[in-house]
Amino acid sequence: MGEPAGIGGEIILKAWNTYRRSLPPLFVIDDRNRLQKLLGQLNLNMDLVEFDPANPGLYENGSRLPVLHAPLPAEQKPGQLISANAAAVVDSIAKAVALTQAGQASGIVTNPIHKSALYETGFSFPGHTEYLASLTTPAATPVMMLACEHLRVVPVSIHVSLRDAVNTLTTDSIIAQSVITANALRRDFGISTPRLAIAGLNPHAGEAGAMGSEEQTIITPAITALKNRGINASGPYPPDTLFAARSRNTYDVAICMYHDQALIPIKTLDFDGGVNITLGLDFIRTSPDHGTALDIAGTGQASETSLVAAIQMAARLAIHRQEYDSRSDA
Amino acid sequence: MGEPAGIGGEIILKAWNTYRRSLPPLFVIDDRNRLQKLLGQLNLNMDLVEFDPANPGLYENGSRLPVLHAPLPAEQKPGQLISANAAAVVDSIAKAVALTQAGQASGIVTNPIHKSALYETGFSFPGHTEYLASLTTPAATPVMMLACEHLRVVPVSIHVSLRDAVNTLTTDSIIAQSVITANALRRDFGISTPRLAIAGLNPHAGEAGAMGSEEQTIITPAITALKNRGINASGPYPPDTLFAARSRNTYDVAICMYHDQALIPIKTLDFDGGVNITLGLDFIRTSPDHGTALDIAGTGQASETSLVAAIQMAARLAIHRQEYDSRSDA
Repeated sequence: MGEPAGIGGEIILKAWNTYRRSLPPLFVIDDRNRLQKLLGQLNLNMDLVEFDPANPGLYENGSRLPVLHAPLPAEQKPGQLISANAAAVVDSIAKAVALTQAGQASGIVTNPIHKSALYETGFSFPGHTEYLASLTTPAATPVMMLACEHLRVVPVSIHVSLRDAVNTLTTDSIIAQSVITANALRRDFGISTPRLAIAGLNPHAGEAGAMGSEEQTIITPAITALKNRGINASGPYPPDTLFAARSRNTYDVAICMYHDQALIPIKTLDFDGGVNITLGLDFIRTSPDHGTALDIAGTGQASETSLVAAIQMAARLAIHRQEYDSRSDA
Repeated sequence: MGEPAGIGGEIILKAWNTYRRSLPPLFVIDDRNRLQKLLGQLNLNMDLVEFDPANPGLYENGSRLPVLHAPLPAEQKPGQLISANAAAVVDSIAKAVALTQAGQASGIVTNPIHKSALYETGFSFPGHTEYLASLTTPAATPVMMLACEHLRVVPVSIHVSLRDAVNTLTTDSIIAQSVITANALRRDFGISTPRLAIAGLNPHAGEAGAMGSEEQTIITPAITALKNRGINASGPYPPDTLFAARSRNTYDVAICMYHDQALIPIKTLDFDGGVNITLGLDFIRTSPDHGTALDIAGTGQASETSLVAAIQMAARLAIHRQEYDSRSDA
């Protein structure tokens, strides 16, 4: 569901209406009445059907979108945050995780949430991802990957100031994020020997200490430790040339030293098609790479492109994971 | 000339051989004997002709490349730095500036130099640009712009560590670089009311202080001051979305808070076609956006694309400047 005041409802309806033949089998956890009302507003030629998790195989990708009803207590209008509905948003996430952990779904695609709306209900996590990590057994260290057709990136730190990103960068944090990433590339992306390109922090990767020493004191020791664990890691690479086309061909993921080092190149290359993937959980989770967009909710302007990419990515990851796990079991 | 051990000689020969009909009238300041030898090695169907600066109008862009002879005292082989030739490299830069300031050339395109080779001769500048600024009358504050077909960027700081870039960012430095940039866009780019997009420093431009406060304490005051000077500046913008196609359409230049914030997007978008432009000098100066590439010098592998773009850019800037100055004189 995500935040029901946002664009989540309309982009899943638009995604199903236009792309259902290229989407994997899926069901939506949302309030069927609000979706039905949105359908009318958007004038889409499709309908909803009640989803029964006990019989997930009964649904085809026809004109009717399967919906597992998650009732909202208060009537929801686009763009208006309603605190009475916040608990239902959190419940829909927990429901998705429970169904996935029970084997009734292969993965989760989350629509964006609005954190401040949830905090009023006692939700105490910094964000969606941390809440999902808390539902993992045992509780996990989540790693954020962003992926588009041309590039995969993992920022070592996320929502901290640039100053704090520099100050808190450690050899251990680079190693931890890289190991989780390498494992996920093997299990969920079908890459048997993933190539990790480790970015430098400073211009030109410091030019041997002339412009910063973190490459020598923090990053290179992490690369050495990763190699000692049998991981194909290399670098540190000058950040400015690492994302050019001919560099991108040489690695499967770029491990980035701060948020914008990762997000600038991917959003520059593919603003709408980027997918957010949470690695390190005990279930597959992807999400579109945008926010709730309260300002345009209900207008029909929102693009479903990133959600479609997130759904297709979740299916690919689930297939790879099933193949990997069946080989490991054999 | 640039560093004669590097690729400068071969890329100007290749540029002339392939693109001379789309290049402006130009002459090369270099050692004609080494260029003649390179011509043979590269097996190019063209020749050199002695350039006489007193008669610059006599040369057409035919098969013969005009060369103003700048003799190297020692025989130069590709890839080998020779300190006996370093003074001649510096002299060729000074000669280009003197001819331009005397009105015998409309602008300068510099091939890359190798700083450590020049330091042995007593050259005491951090780089090419600072040396050029010292030859300006009065001595100038040079501003580095990088431009490709899709984007122009100016980093407020250049060759310092990321930590120092954060620590030394000031309202005054943003204002100073932005004013020089706005003036250059008017005079040299033919943009009567340039739109400056000022980037944030932190993820999501700090989200109202949640992830860093420099947007509030340093950047926004600079934008206010620029507006008060009549400059169309706006921001601070979230850095990760600022370089996506639909954002790029809304501004003429992005003023960036550190080196890689500027260089990552432009090198990701256009690795070979980027041009380095020095603003704030009393003459036009561009350069290709790459180094001396000693490792491939003499092999014929070097791409002339960025040099060709730098030459064409210098010509466009010179035409705009002449038009602007003639209007200002009238």
